[in-house]
Amino acid sequence: MNSTIDIIKNRMSLRKYQNKPISKEHLDIIIESAMRAPTAGNMMLYSILIVEDEEKREKLSITCDNQSFIAKAPLVLIFLADMQRWYDYYNYCDVKEYCKRNQIEFRAPDEADLLLASSDAIIAAQNAVIAAESLGIGSCYIGDIMENYEVHKEMFNLPDKVFPIAMLCMGYYPLDIKRRIKPRFDRKYIVFNESYKRLKNKELEDMFKNRKVKENNKYNAKNFGQYFYARKTGADFAKEMSRSVKEALEFWKKEI
Amino acid sequence: MNSTIDIIKNRMSLRKYQNKPISKEHLDIIIESAMRAPTAGNMMLYSILIVEDEEKREKLSITCDNQSFIAKAPLVLIFLADMQRWYDYYNYCDVKEYCKRNQIEFRAPDEADLLLASSDAIIAAQNAVIAAESLGIGSCYIGDIMENYEVHKEMFNLPDKVFPIAMLCMGYYPLDIKRRIKPRFDRKYIVFNESYKRLKNKELEDMFKNRKVKENNKYNAKNFGQYFYARKTGADFAKEMSRSVKEALEFWKKEI
Repeated sequence: MNSTIDIIKNRMSLRKYQNKPISKEHLDIIIESAMRAPTAGNMMLYSILIVEDEEKREKLSITCDNQSFIAKAPLVLIFLADMQRWYDYYNYCDVKEYCKRNQIEFRAPDEADLLLASSDAIIAAQNAVIAAESLGIGSCYIGDIMENYEVHKEMFNLPDKVFPIAMLCMGYYPLDIKRRIKPRFDRKYIVFNESYKRLKNKELEDMFKNRKVKENNKYNAKNFGQYFYARKTGADFAKEMSRSVKEALEFWKKEI
Repeated sequence: MNSTIDIIKNRMSLRKYQNKPISKEHLDIIIESAMRAPTAGNMMLYSILIVEDEEKREKLSITCDNQSFIAKAPLVLIFLADMQRWYDYYNYCDVKEYCKRNQIEFRAPDEADLLLASSDAIIAAQNAVIAAESLGIGSCYIGDIMENYEVHKEMFNLPDKVFPIAMLCMGYYPLDIKRRIKPRFDRKYIVFNESYKRLKNKELEDMFKNRKVKENNKYNAKNFGQYFYARKTGADFAKEMSRSVKEALEFWKKEI
């Protein structure tokens, strides 16, 4: 179709990289591309942390569910949902006093602002992913950056109204890479016309027909659903993510 | 640099479209591109609603903060954070009973799952945006789809564990379009090395130096911060978004 569509269709999550740093020119293009992302009201409700320091990457490889390849990624980018900058500006502009004078409610950021700022951050992240891909630089999202909130807060000096919503590991594709494009679920179970369609058992069975589990598996699961629940949705890292996000929300929503 | 970077850098939010439908071929490419987006554990924690029905678009143009151009967009895509499909599958697989038998906690989706599923949905949405852009199709994000949760829930038949995190209006660029690429904040206030940098008053002043407000404005604001707070963060639509998201979370977290 065109080269952009080709890039999107051939992208894979890359967890092994050439052992060479991202060039300054390429890093600049990636960052500039992220910053061109659409953003609510042109507010840029996000910040980007460039992490190249080896010690920090080592630590992240542990705090983000023990994924050792993180330490070996030449470049790590953390995308932060960020309302702090705007609220600091509001403070600088005496908005609280202005609200009182004009009988407008002054409100701290809440769940909706977290979703909006996270959307901004993720849109920027995906621009970075596609820009990188077009330069021969592969990437892998690490949602686990949402875990261990207190550790990351201290590690990166994050104020209360800043939340790490996504992390990207990046590096040049190895020269001998074999692209493995993972199959997705069939479109008819993901895309609906005009109205949501809740799937019936027969459709769920068909949807998952290619996902199998061994009879003797370490989770004592009798089918793929049980196996996958144990491995993902009900796993320790998911529980930690759940705890961590709740904790982060306490700081996020704290009165200013 | 390359055509993908050019597409990213020249993209603008488009709110006026050619009065012609998106071709089936182009729609398919946009949907397939969205579905190639990276997704946590290959779970595809999102669904996509294709909305072409005129009446529905009319209604959305009202429920999403009265933006009349929504009704005139040839194509509307709603990106849904979706845990319903997986939990229906878990139910089909007797995961609750499996958990009891193996003394694993069975948990309903919570805030962390909403953030993870929303991330999946937004990554897919941004793939759709860039694919569309490469085909001469412009787009505009409508975060206001997070408002009026109850209305949209009924309108699109959304079950409890499905949340509309983003909407895209799409249409072909008008032939006489003048591209207006909005300036972003300076990189030094958005991108940080190794650690977050909280901005000082002097930096905030410099960051916002190009954003001005008229002396006599309808918000009775004395500076840009006050004006912008009244117009955005403290505005009625933001309060509605706040209420709506809280309400949605009640359904999202309800025990299964």
